[in-house]
Amino acid sequence: MGRRIIAHSMPMPDFADTTIRVRYAETDQMGVAYHSNYFIWFEVGRVELCRQLGFEYKQMEAEDDSFIVVAEAYCRFKRPARFDDTLTVRTRVAGSQRRTVRFSYEVFNQSSGELIATGETNHVICDRLGRPKSLPVKYRKYFPANNRDRSANPSNESKRETETLQ
Amino acid sequence: MGRRIIAHSMPMPDFADTTIRVRYAETDQMGVAYHSNYFIWFEVGRVELCRQLGFEYKQMEAEDDSFIVVAEAYCRFKRPARFDDTLTVRTRVAGSQRRTVRFSYEVFNQSSGELIATGETNHVICDRLGRPKSLPVKYRKYFPANNRDRSANPSNESKRETETLQ
Amino acid sequence: MGRRIIAHSMPMPDFADTTIRVRYAETDQMGVAYHSNYFIWFEVGRVELCRQLGFEYKQMEAEDDSFIVVAEAYCRFKRPARFDDTLTVRTRVAGSQRRTVRFSYEVFNQSSGELIATGETNHVICDRLGRPKSLPVKYRKYFPANNRDRSANPSNESKRETETLQ
Amino acid sequence: MGRRIIAHSMPMPDFADTTIRVRYAETDQMGVAYHSNYFIWFEVGRVELCRQLGFEYKQMEAEDDSFIVVAEAYCRFKRPARFDDTLTVRTRVAGSQRRTVRFSYEVFNQSSGELIATGETNHVICDRLGRPKSLPVKYRKYFPANNRDRSANPSNESKRETETLQ
Repeated sequence: MGRRIIAHSMPMPDFADTTIRVRYAETDQMGVAYHSNYFIWFEVGRVELCRQLGFEYKQMEAEDDSFIVVAEAYCRFKRPARFDDTLTVRTRVAGSQRRTVRFSYEVFNQSSGELIATGETNHVICDRLGRPKSLPVKYRKYFPANNRDRSANPSNESKRETETLQ
Repeated sequence: MGRRIIAHSMPMPDFADTTIRVRYAETDQMGVAYHSNYFIWFEVGRVELCRQLGFEYKQMEAEDDSFIVVAEAYCRFKRPARFDDTLTVRTRVAGSQRRTVRFSYEVFNQSSGELIATGETNHVICDRLGRPKSLPVKYRKYFPANNRDRSANPSNESKRETETLQ
Repeated sequence: MGRRIIAHSMPMPDFADTTIRVRYAETDQMGVAYHSNYFIWFEVGRVELCRQLGFEYKQMEAEDDSFIVVAEAYCRFKRPARFDDTLTVRTRVAGSQRRTVRFSYEVFNQSSGELIATGETNHVICDRLGRPKSLPVKYRKYFPANNRDRSANPSNESKRETETLQ
Repeated sequence: MGRRIIAHSMPMPDFADTTIRVRYAETDQMGVAYHSNYFIWFEVGRVELCRQLGFEYKQMEAEDDSFIVVAEAYCRFKRPARFDDTLTVRTRVAGSQRRTVRFSYEVFNQSSGELIATGETNHVICDRLGRPKSLPVKYRKYFPANNRDRSANPSNESKRETETLQ
């Protein structure tokens, strides 16, 4: 599933999977999960990816005064999610620079296996006052500059999700 | 403010402004409005735009079995919004086709006048079972095929917000 | 409507009315506003009541290190609220002591005039670290010890909403 | 842990435990989980309790046209929950009648073991149009008329949480 292409030199997972069960509160009167919730699920995915990479995001905030602030968020909704569905949020570091990190997401319905949404978020590293800063050195290993070559589906990745918005 | 001067030939507003006051529940531990709320505010803006264009979105659902389902959502966050801030969500029809409608958004801080976020959403017209359908004829006048030429800031619009995600 | 029984000696309003328009995001698949949102609307009502009483809640937090922390929350849901309904949240100070404040709420549907929900919340004054403290002296005038006698509907108030939970 | 020992006569669990991890989106600027989220966690607990009792709540809605509509909700907040905390929501059927069901909740911090909140909700069984109806016969076995005697902490239960609101 794309994990650890060369395990001894790159032991970090290139994505993390998190399970989300759709809450009643997350549905709307159309009978499906309201779209803004996907961005919350993406955040749950990011936090879990951090944990699987080897650190706790909350400690990055508390101990290193470094917040991964959302600068852009995008989601494409392909199929609806419904109450009580169990979903997998697959989260990747899509790339990073000194002060920015980019994550990408795929959301699958666990029952049907279908890909129901894809997304991407761009972030700026900030201190607690919201001032941009460099990602502390100790975290750089977790966020490679360009993660495309570690992608599980490289062919898929060349077609950018945002193209459809053009 | 960008509204049509020649009222008799084009009485419809080319955008609608809605006021949002940031709720405590919408803040997060960073002390700012959590980003997924902007997509909810966009929805509030769409509903208000429909009303100012001349119809109630709820009746479009109830009487014409036509739902404006979100297919894509994008937001760029430029500056934070804080608890109790009053914001203006300016919503436009950015374009439409037979089965799709595109909206664009600008969010301003009313106190400072600053543009704090921009966004865009793409929608597919669906029936109550989620099957794509054509926008009923009676609503077509509200959604011109290409709204760019009615934009308040045409020069701005040529630079697409999504470019920064590339 | 119960305001200012003796205007010259008690110029403060005994309640504040806030308008809420039900958002699509607040509905659930039953087609009504999901119940937890009422507690958010209560908070919107509290903030507006503070403003009408004469101070900004955000400044109470920022300048006086005093947070009105929720210790208990109760709501009785009598009739559903639906998407795009406009509601009035009527908020009162129901009582207070040195370190606690109690608010009560009535939610009306503006179109039908019907009372659709009632509620009550108890709060403890805390500093930013969550430690209980006394309400600063300058705010005491806003929170009378027992507000029952200033109620708009005293007969109503004698029947406590919480009784039905017993 | 309070589960029925005499399995052959009463195989149903008298409560269900669900794990909740506090999301960033659920925090507020006070740095703790915003209080209305507890009512959403209660709902997650109810759905899980139904599953452990032996049925899927979504099928009760879809196949039996029976909705467990919230009529009252109460929560007492004892200690804060913070971002990324893992919580246990322990849910019980507190009692029921022909058309009503009552649930009670305890929320524990898994790390400290502390009880951080208790709550209770009352519900009316309704059809999809919101009209009260009797609980279908096939579900009655899941909702005993009075569940107090099956409580894990009977002494605790005799002191009703709502008393403090009086």
